[in-house]
Amino acid sequence: MPSAENQQQLDIAAERAKCTFDPSQLTALFYGGEEKMKRFKAIEAMVDREPVFDRTDRYFLGRTERFKRALPMVKRYVELRNEHGLTPEEAAHFKVYIDDYIPVHLHESMFLPVLRSQASDEQLKVWGPHAENYHYIGCYAQTELGHGSALSRLETTATLDLATDQWVINSPTQSSAKFWIGTLGKMANHAVVQAKLIIKGKDYGSHPFLVPLRSLKDHTPLPGVVIKDQGPKQGAISMDNGYARFNHVRIPRTNMLMRFSQVSKEGVYSKPIHPKLAYGGMTAVRTTLINHSALSMARAVTIATRYSAVRRQGNVDLKTDLETQVLDYPAVQYRILPLLSHAFATIFSGYWMNEMYAQYNADITKGDTTLLKDVHVYSSGLKSYCTKLGADGIEEARRCLGGHGFSLFSGMIDFHRQFLATVTYEGENALLTQQVSRYLLKLYKDVIRKPDMHLSPPSRYIVSLVNHERFVQQRCPARSMAELYHPKIVLKAFQHRAARLIFELAQAEKQGAQWSDLNLECMRLSKAHVQYIMIENFHNGLEKRYNVSSNPTAEQEALLAAVRSVYNLHVFYTLETELAEFLEDGYFSPEQAAWTRQALKDSLKSVRPNAVGFADCFGFTDKFLNSALGSYDGRAYERMAEMTEYEPLNGKEMTDERGVVWGYEEFLKPLIFGEAGAYKARKPESKL
Amino acid sequence: MPSAENQQQLDIAAERAKCTFDPSQLTALFYGGEEKMKRFKAIEAMVDREPVFDRTDRYFLGRTERFKRALPMVKRYVELRNEHGLTPEEAAHFKVYIDDYIPVHLHESMFLPVLRSQASDEQLKVWGPHAENYHYIGCYAQTELGHGSALSRLETTATLDLATDQWVINSPTQSSAKFWIGTLGKMANHAVVQAKLIIKGKDYGSHPFLVPLRSLKDHTPLPGVVIKDQGPKQGAISMDNGYARFNHVRIPRTNMLMRFSQVSKEGVYSKPIHPKLAYGGMTAVRTTLINHSALSMARAVTIATRYSAVRRQGNVDLKTDLETQVLDYPAVQYRILPLLSHAFATIFSGYWMNEMYAQYNADITKGDTTLLKDVHVYSSGLKSYCTKLGADGIEEARRCLGGHGFSLFSGMIDFHRQFLATVTYEGENALLTQQVSRYLLKLYKDVIRKPDMHLSPPSRYIVSLVNHERFVQQRCPARSMAELYHPKIVLKAFQHRAARLIFELAQAEKQGAQWSDLNLECMRLSKAHVQYIMIENFHNGLEKRYNVSSNPTAEQEALLAAVRSVYNLHVFYTLETELAEFLEDGYFSPEQAAWTRQALKDSLKSVRPNAVGFADCFGFTDKFLNSALGSYDGRAYERMAEMTEYEPLNGKEMTDERGVVWGYEEFLKPLIFGEAGAYKARKPESKL
Repeated sequence: MPSAENQQQLDIAAERAKCTFDPSQLTALFYGGEEKMKRFKAIEAMVDREPVFDRTDRYFLGRTERFKRALPMVKRYVELRNEHGLTPEEAAHFKVYIDDYIPVHLHESMFLPVLRSQASDEQLKVWGPHAENYHYIGCYAQTELGHGSALSRLETTATLDLATDQWVINSPTQSSAKFWIGTLGKMANHAVVQAKLIIKGKDYGSHPFLVPLRSLKDHTPLPGVVIKDQGPKQGAISMDNGYARFNHVRIPRTNMLMRFSQVSKEGVYSKPIHPKLAYGGMTAVRTTLINHSALSMARAVTIATRYSAVRRQGNVDLKTDLETQVLDYPAVQYRILPLLSHAFATIFSGYWMNEMYAQYNADITKGDTTLLKDVHVYSSGLKSYCTKLGADGIEEARRCLGGHGFSLFSGMIDFHRQFLATVTYEGENALLTQQVSRYLLKLYKDVIRKPDMHLSPPSRYIVSLVNHERFVQQRCPARSMAELYHPKIVLKAFQHRAARLIFELAQAEKQGAQWSDLNLECMRLSKAHVQYIMIENFHNGLEKRYNVSSNPTAEQEALLAAVRSVYNLHVFYTLETELAEFLEDGYFSPEQAAWTRQALKDSLKSVRPNAVGFADCFGFTDKFLNSALGSYDGRAYERMAEMTEYEPLNGKEMTDERGVVWGYEEFLKPLIFGEAGAYKARKPESKL
Repeated sequence: MPSAENQQQLDIAAERAKCTFDPSQLTALFYGGEEKMKRFKAIEAMVDREPVFDRTDRYFLGRTERFKRALPMVKRYVELRNEHGLTPEEAAHFKVYIDDYIPVHLHESMFLPVLRSQASDEQLKVWGPHAENYHYIGCYAQTELGHGSALSRLETTATLDLATDQWVINSPTQSSAKFWIGTLGKMANHAVVQAKLIIKGKDYGSHPFLVPLRSLKDHTPLPGVVIKDQGPKQGAISMDNGYARFNHVRIPRTNMLMRFSQVSKEGVYSKPIHPKLAYGGMTAVRTTLINHSALSMARAVTIATRYSAVRRQGNVDLKTDLETQVLDYPAVQYRILPLLSHAFATIFSGYWMNEMYAQYNADITKGDTTLLKDVHVYSSGLKSYCTKLGADGIEEARRCLGGHGFSLFSGMIDFHRQFLATVTYEGENALLTQQVSRYLLKLYKDVIRKPDMHLSPPSRYIVSLVNHERFVQQRCPARSMAELYHPKIVLKAFQHRAARLIFELAQAEKQGAQWSDLNLECMRLSKAHVQYIMIENFHNGLEKRYNVSSNPTAEQEALLAAVRSVYNLHVFYTLETELAEFLEDGYFSPEQAAWTRQALKDSLKSVRPNAVGFADCFGFTDKFLNSALGSYDGRAYERMAEMTEYEPLNGKEMTDERGVVWGYEEFLKPLIFGEAGAYKARKPESKL
């Protein structure tokens, strides 16, 4: 009988042998084609070769140490980017692969995009080169201690001093201090500050200003600026999210970002033609968060699946005397494999969103803003839904790994802590559902007035509400479990449910409910609509986007069949989770509900044999996963033991050469030798 | 208009003014009466006075620093316990209040109880005093790298050497190394080791042995024992969970714990009369985990409620120009207040479980083991359900606090990370559901054979399945939303659902399904049964346990009414979450489903005015909460800013007196001054 360690390697090899498709085909697809994959893999190898990016002992480091490691990474990242002339997309992959939020992250992800989109051409000509080449290191300072994204309630002021042609930037209260600003605490020498623009006592609302923070000569904070790091967080441990308070700091009038609004020397304010164009940035970031969610789910699934394939517990096979691979238990499948299906659905929805966003960006250069609303609504809805799927799903997968899932060596904790931020930033998830719902409600009202109006495909189902009498008689037509698998039947069911929730929201509003009292209805509706979109995208991605020729090869057939099993899992898991909403108006019968539960069980079973193949298909390297449990070779227990070698409590500073812990003489010996006093029952004179 | 800071204090005061009951009445109740509260509060004050327990800068410390702080805590804890003659219950409260898992935690929570229950009277006479007085510092070494709680698959062996009258303790493989053992890594000088007992080649299964680990003279590891700390974890940051591997370590034969099994000098093995009696320990720990869940939920609710009462965002009141307290939004209520209701339900269920366990312990001294099964099943089911409620609910409440919930200053993260362990240890939550379901299935089969058999109250509803024809015709009799509030109607609904799931599990088994294929059914059934128990306990606690005299005072009436609103919230939140299972067999009508959703909204509204009163009622001190957001006085923003003062990145070591960050010269300057090279597009000769 092989040792547990060897058995793990046999097990994972056996999993790969029984996989019915070639995972590397999907890897290339997910990397954006063979060519791009080659290039991205070269970048990964480059990072692996560079000592400053080494992550061997990352899990042992406290915040100060992580920050100290991050500074050399910043420099080396910029050097390598420049040396190899990386495209923005390649540089982005580089940063993802580093897998740590280096403290200039916000310079590239927020400061530069805001500058590019909101500074005038003239301003960009001056500032652009400084910013692109890191002479200016910048951050984007919007959030305040007392307010998140509500621009209208920010307290920081920018008051025009006509005499000097300057803005006076001021933080009147403690709650007006800028807070949560990444790259601000220690790194940035410039900030785009959102502040209330005030001219002659009149408040024109929040606008962006370029404010120097630190001397370009020696990095000392400029007069009137109090800046500091804001303290430890759930994630982003290496990032210097910061606090800044401005005491009447003066900047030139021309430091206001003037692409959309302008203020003249005379103090005349001109407003933007398209006020909403100024908010393109959040939409872009939300779109990337959808892709980031997919990546994070895929990462967790890779680790959880591989470990569950090599971890044997419970029922013993009498012939081999081996316990069962835990991945064979439905409870384990149910807690891990749906996350795989969500990762796929999110990837396909990310493609869809990326394309819509690209189209919108192309349109807008021609002055066509038709897609503005859709881009905003779908990036909001998908961001809200996918980040929650990820945040919850990764944690559930972690809990499914037994005790070892609680160790940082699992590789499931460090990145998840960071990921947890995504449910809050760029629009809090629950809040975003109001935007989606308001949009659907508006469409519904429009359609009722004008049933032949144009609707974009994802909201076309709303038409079914025009004849409400017929709508309420709709019933799911599936006459057997097999028919439930039919994509049309599923999509129709999700459309019906979302439409019903739109109608109910409209009714509630009609009956006088305040919008702010309809939060729960919005959360429910947005989720219903987005779940429909996700299934539609997954289905289209599978059937149309990668359209296999009419004569597919056996290899292509095998791949499609495998991915289709994942699609079915996504569908039935979602259906089962939301079953009440399909039952409560009678659209589903009790029998159909029972079929759904059975179809979910069957879907788990049919994904199971390919599970390790799917884990492999995302193409993560062992170095990136940084996981004792989820490495490619399956040697989980050996790696768990090996990683303890780096624990500082076992190092020289904390344990002497005889193996005795720091503090023994002072704190332990008195206990062991009874000097700390023996326990006696309470005496009446106890003063306690 | 007051500043945001002053407004926060006005807001929280206004909340307290409008509370309809006296929170201190509940505080006394939860502390176990006025007398006990006085004593416990004195212990809290004592801890607050002791510098070693100070937690001002706890959130900034890395693992090594936390461990270094924990050692003095260990010594001081023992000294104070001895000095004041604290009872075990008081010492337990002391440790809870320290709010850090000091690295001898497992000595008192596992080593001592196992010794007391599994060593023979004779052994206890020798070992007891050493262990009680910390001469022996012990741990309980069961879990191995390759196995969790499955005693039968542990690999460590204890082989009797008849010649020397010794056991030889050995770890044959890497995966047999003891792992996850709290207090082992650096602190313990003894362990109770679970090892396979082998005599003359015969394996008698796992048994406990007292194994010396480190010299009592100088704390050096004994020959043949490799021990180390096992590395960083999600929580328990100050705890030295450890790794130990034994290389043919010899201990006297009499170091086997012999209360239940014995081995004579001649190598004759005697088995225990009641084999299951040996496993009492886990049941006790599970029972305490129920109480621990309640405490943790209450803690999160306290912080989240207070902050949401002083946090104003969104809709503006035109008269006052104040934004809305976020606690007034249904989305916020929906994400925080149900956790309050779960905390109450868990407290009342904890009382119920504690009493059952005390009764069981009393019975057992008289040789009566009737309650063994119930104690095991209910501690398992409640542990599984309540720890999950807590783990998920605390995280949801944290996410509801906006960005500041992501800061460690929120006070929502450090304790939650530790709490997350509870879903895994002492029986993994999903696994435990099988035990509950197996028990219910067995009862069902018995009842079918013998309908007049005795059933304990919580499972009495199973009788309804005897006449199955009548059972399937059951429908919820509520004719209005008001009738849904009737406790009898609610309890009946939960009974019906659990009974149906028992029946379906039995059917699936009858039709040939393997038990291991029925995981999902077990998870569903166990949850259904436990949810019923929780509601029953909450209801009884409210109506019977604290039975108000027939002429209640106005104060008592007010309290009861307030708690009843929390009960309703718990009921309708649970009902709504599980709505599909009430609909899918037609027990609920679509109309009743709609009433449920409305009743949930109404329940949130009716708890809302007392929310801060309920947050206060748990009696947590500000020092314990250690939260910028949830302190009693509501000064959230000021405290957030104040706590940044302690951030080491702002300290001398990382930022010089001019305000310039460590590493500026080496890593930032080269970027700012362009020495790191400027970006150029990729050249063809790039080797990447």
